Amino acid sequence: MSQDLFLNHPITTKSFAIIDQEIGQHDFDALEYKVVRRVIHSTADFELINSLSFSPNAIKKGINALKKKTPIVTDVTMVKQGVLSLVNKTFKNLVIASVNQTSGSNPGKTLTETGLLKCCNTYPRGIYVIGNAPTALLTLCQQILLNKIQPSLIIGAPVGFVSVLEAKQALKRVNVPKIIVQGRKGGSPVAASILNALITLAYKNELP
Amino acid sequence: MSQDLFLNHPITTKSFAIIDQEIGQHDFDALEYKVVRRVIHSTADFELINSLSFSPNAIKKGINALKKKTPIVTDVTMVKQGVLSLVNKTFKNLVIASVNQTSGSNPGKTLTETGLLKCCNTYPRGIYVIGNAPTALLTLCQQILLNKIQPSLIIGAPVGFVSVLEAKQALKRVNVPKIIVQGRKGGSPVAASILNALITLAYKNELP
Repeated sequence: MSQDLFLNHPITTKSFAIIDQEIGQHDFDALEYKVVRRVIHSTADFELINSLSFSPNAIKKGINALKKKTPIVTDVTMVKQGVLSLVNKTFKNLVIASVNQTSGSNPGKTLTETGLLKCCNTYPRGIYVIGNAPTALLTLCQQILLNKIQPSLIIGAPVGFVSVLEAKQALKRVNVPKIIVQGRKGGSPVAASILNALITLAYKNELP
Repeated sequence: MSQDLFLNHPITTKSFAIIDQEIGQHDFDALEYKVVRRVIHSTADFELINSLSFSPNAIKKGINALKKKTPIVTDVTMVKQGVLSLVNKTFKNLVIASVNQTSGSNPGKTLTETGLLKCCNTYPRGIYVIGNAPTALLTLCQQILLNKIQPSLIIGAPVGFVSVLEAKQALKRVNVPKIIVQGRKGGSPVAASILNALITLAYKNELP
């Protein structure tokens, strides 16, 4: 997500037109496609069209939560940076990076995981955007299974080679509105671009 | 680049072992491969091994500049966030995001471009890390052609569909130490992971 790209910036419009032309066949509905297109825009990786999945009404639920100024919890600061500019220009939700919520070390846990547990207590119905740490996503899923939290939406896009597939499998199994980037791919710009697409949809009032 | 991943974190070691196993044939030398591996680690995108190119001694020159505490200039704040943690744990170079160096609008120019011009004046021999804005990279190349700056290293990894290939072509033509992610792909984590790989190499004293 470029920090120069405002809603309807001419470079964005031109990029979207190129993606529309090159994308080929797909099964996404109109709203889903706007999210997919933004992800491709931020990565130039058309392979991601085969990885994105949406639970029923995830986009609509995410949009409603954004409009209600639901706090947004990210795993790492790069994801926070990727959404902050558009959030501040639109619904001005609180944006919290889990990794910054803790300074102490917790044996056997990553900083992101420890910080995320703290956020779960404070924001049990938050919008959670995970672009990096599979441990954060696994922790989120455990908290849902324990009935401790009920997030308004989870964007599950950690990236990498260790625990990433397991974390995404765990997210598939819990009952929560979710948008998942399946497989090993994901990352901060992917997670941020999914949320930015929802903000744009919400702000443009494209939903009844 | 995970903010949980310190040098030699066991998850990083395990991920690197998986990449070593899966990468197959390539022509990179030992130092280059450490950069390539870190890029794949941050994206899970093996396709990038075909996109990365290094000018002669770019890695060695980048490492020397890092050790001399040369200021690091990024285009956007996501790239800054991606490198800040490791920089602060190692050589403590100044890290500046161009986009934050200007508040005024400059007709026909992006914020990043205007901010970058300002950074060129202040840090003519800086390490420039571009992970998003092709306009920033084009501006950098113009300043080199005008003999106004001589960066210690340019990491050219903007992403997208408009002006990105042109900016990378321009970088290829100027005489400067450079690491380029060719094609449309790139992005903040890619740019950050290239610099983080160099920091790790420099800090571990892997060079004579």
